[in-house]
Amino acid sequence: MSNFAIGVDLGGTNLRIAAVNEEGRLLEKVTLGTKVALGRDHVINDMCDAIRHLSDKYQTSGRLLGVGIGVPGIIDMQTGMVRESPNLPGWSDYPVRDEIEKRLQAPVILENDANVAALGEKWLGAGRHVGDMAMLTLGTGVGGGVILNGKIWHGMTGMAGEFGHMTVEPGGHPCGCGNRGCVEQYASATAVVRMAREAIATGDAPELAKAASSDAEFSAKEIYNLAIQGDEQAKMIFRRAGRALGIVLAGLVNGLNLEMYVIGGGVSSAWEALSPGIFEQLRERSMVYAATAPSDPASATGASANVEATGGRKTIITRALLGSDAGLFGAARLPMTGV
Amino acid sequence: MSNFAIGVDLGGTNLRIAAVNEEGRLLEKVTLGTKVALGRDHVINDMCDAIRHLSDKYQTSGRLLGVGIGVPGIIDMQTGMVRESPNLPGWSDYPVRDEIEKRLQAPVILENDANVAALGEKWLGAGRHVGDMAMLTLGTGVGGGVILNGKIWHGMTGMAGEFGHMTVEPGGHPCGCGNRGCVEQYASATAVVRMAREAIATGDAPELAKAASSDAEFSAKEIYNLAIQGDEQAKMIFRRAGRALGIVLAGLVNGLNLEMYVIGGGVSSAWEALSPGIFEQLRERSMVYAATAPSDPASATGASANVEATGGRKTIITRALLGSDAGLFGAARLPMTGV
Repeated sequence: MSNFAIGVDLGGTNLRIAAVNEEGRLLEKVTLGTKVALGRDHVINDMCDAIRHLSDKYQTSGRLLGVGIGVPGIIDMQTGMVRESPNLPGWSDYPVRDEIEKRLQAPVILENDANVAALGEKWLGAGRHVGDMAMLTLGTGVGGGVILNGKIWHGMTGMAGEFGHMTVEPGGHPCGCGNRGCVEQYASATAVVRMAREAIATGDAPELAKAASSDAEFSAKEIYNLAIQGDEQAKMIFRRAGRALGIVLAGLVNGLNLEMYVIGGGVSSAWEALSPGIFEQLRERSMVYAATAPSDPASATGASANVEATGGRKTIITRALLGSDAGLFGAARLPMTGV
Repeated sequence: MSNFAIGVDLGGTNLRIAAVNEEGRLLEKVTLGTKVALGRDHVINDMCDAIRHLSDKYQTSGRLLGVGIGVPGIIDMQTGMVRESPNLPGWSDYPVRDEIEKRLQAPVILENDANVAALGEKWLGAGRHVGDMAMLTLGTGVGGGVILNGKIWHGMTGMAGEFGHMTVEPGGHPCGCGNRGCVEQYASATAVVRMAREAIATGDAPELAKAASSDAEFSAKEIYNLAIQGDEQAKMIFRRAGRALGIVLAGLVNGLNLEMYVIGGGVSSAWEALSPGIFEQLRERSMVYAATAPSDPASATGASANVEATGGRKTIITRALLGSDAGLFGAARLPMTGV
């Protein structure tokens, strides 16, 4: 008999809902399309129906501890409202948490999606043996989360962890946030595709040009496929993305001296192509990393063994282990531990 | 009747020792030269004599809670040993804390000097009304400290807060740490003088050239004096230093979302010349700052009023208030609160 919670990953495209028990076992996962165009109330109805279905089904196996919801945007933790979410138009200034609590008669916690991904990796993934870690999530944009003493670090207004908008090239590519040279402009899926199109435009990237012309949905994944097949232009793009990540990581290692930094999100699948640039910059730019690096950082991808071997006094840089489920597990974890 | 502690600021040049009571009142301060050349044991003898003198003198007014010592270097908090200190040759791998505890029969805490400065500003200075803050100390180098929930954040190996070695120009000036373009290479006193000499070498900085030729100890202070007299070349140097600080601060604001960031150390006396570059970069580069900036950041130099007025939901960037005493107060605070 183990109590359980519901984790929700409210994406711009998919709405995923899972029942997870206190031991971290996934009881069931439901994936729906997020019908954003039908409006907020429609999405909340779908979500509540699915949550009710799961909680009814598993109520014999334990008590429902509550519902955690990961949202792609900035959350006001006090009011449980969405402050800003480009992918969820119409959700701002609406009492999302209170409305869902009223309908379900269960405690609900809203949280930023990159923060719940970090919490998921902390609970069951790469960070399960460490107390303090930071995570960068490389998706359409670059998100981030910080876990200190096992809990999400929110900062003063819930905006901590915006690592995607740290500057790596002061005069670099303009970013939607108003800055230039944010790491998001080099290490997101969007940036990888943009850099590939820039390479194609020079006329020196025939393989990339071929791939782009044969596919209307030319993606970071295809560029990675070319990289692992040995295409130099594709490899250079991921090397550049890795270097940008390495500059940000070097700063975080120097500033925070955490035990672990986890790279997740779709683009982290390209770890083999990203990691040389990451470790090159870390070694060059972080004296704290130089003093605390594992003897063979390249092998640190299977993080837990490494952490145990070094007694936790080494800085581990590693890829995430839970894939897109990190956010679901992290969201389900919220009602188990509180904010 | 108020208990008291002894704070020690063990610099490469001066050894300063103060008795401070629990209310934060300075009872007495002693300044000695640090006779580094005479060796570690000589310095420890001087220090212990002065501590004994002060503790005997004030023992009638309260109990001695212990001794805190700020050291310019990396400290192993567990062993109480100096791991690395370029300015204190011969101090590494020696049980400094245990030796002084044995001699004084009182609890002793060793701590990095930038960390104690941050703790001092938190206790009695710019940060006295906030819970979480970071501080950058602009001296010969650039040090840093992080205070979370009122306590120094040490990180995994006591190396957190090395903000001076965060990168602001990936291909910039080489730094002693092995990196290029560290903020220390633009915003330390050493860097200000270097940038002035670079300007003189171009032949376009006649006032700086005059000041440099008339004084063998051409310093950041003289360059600042020229800046406030309106010399464009001198102003540009501090604008550049401020911009470098602004890039690092923008990253810290985005990543940590703390309530306050304090700029201290000798070069922070040039606040009027530094702050335009700082706030320019913050506004351009930090979405979190843009969302949380006080309506008139330039007036935020008298921080406490501002923090109170905004209920602590604004990001305050401000200069330090305690000058070189921050480290003394912070060191004395250590035995009052524990590590």
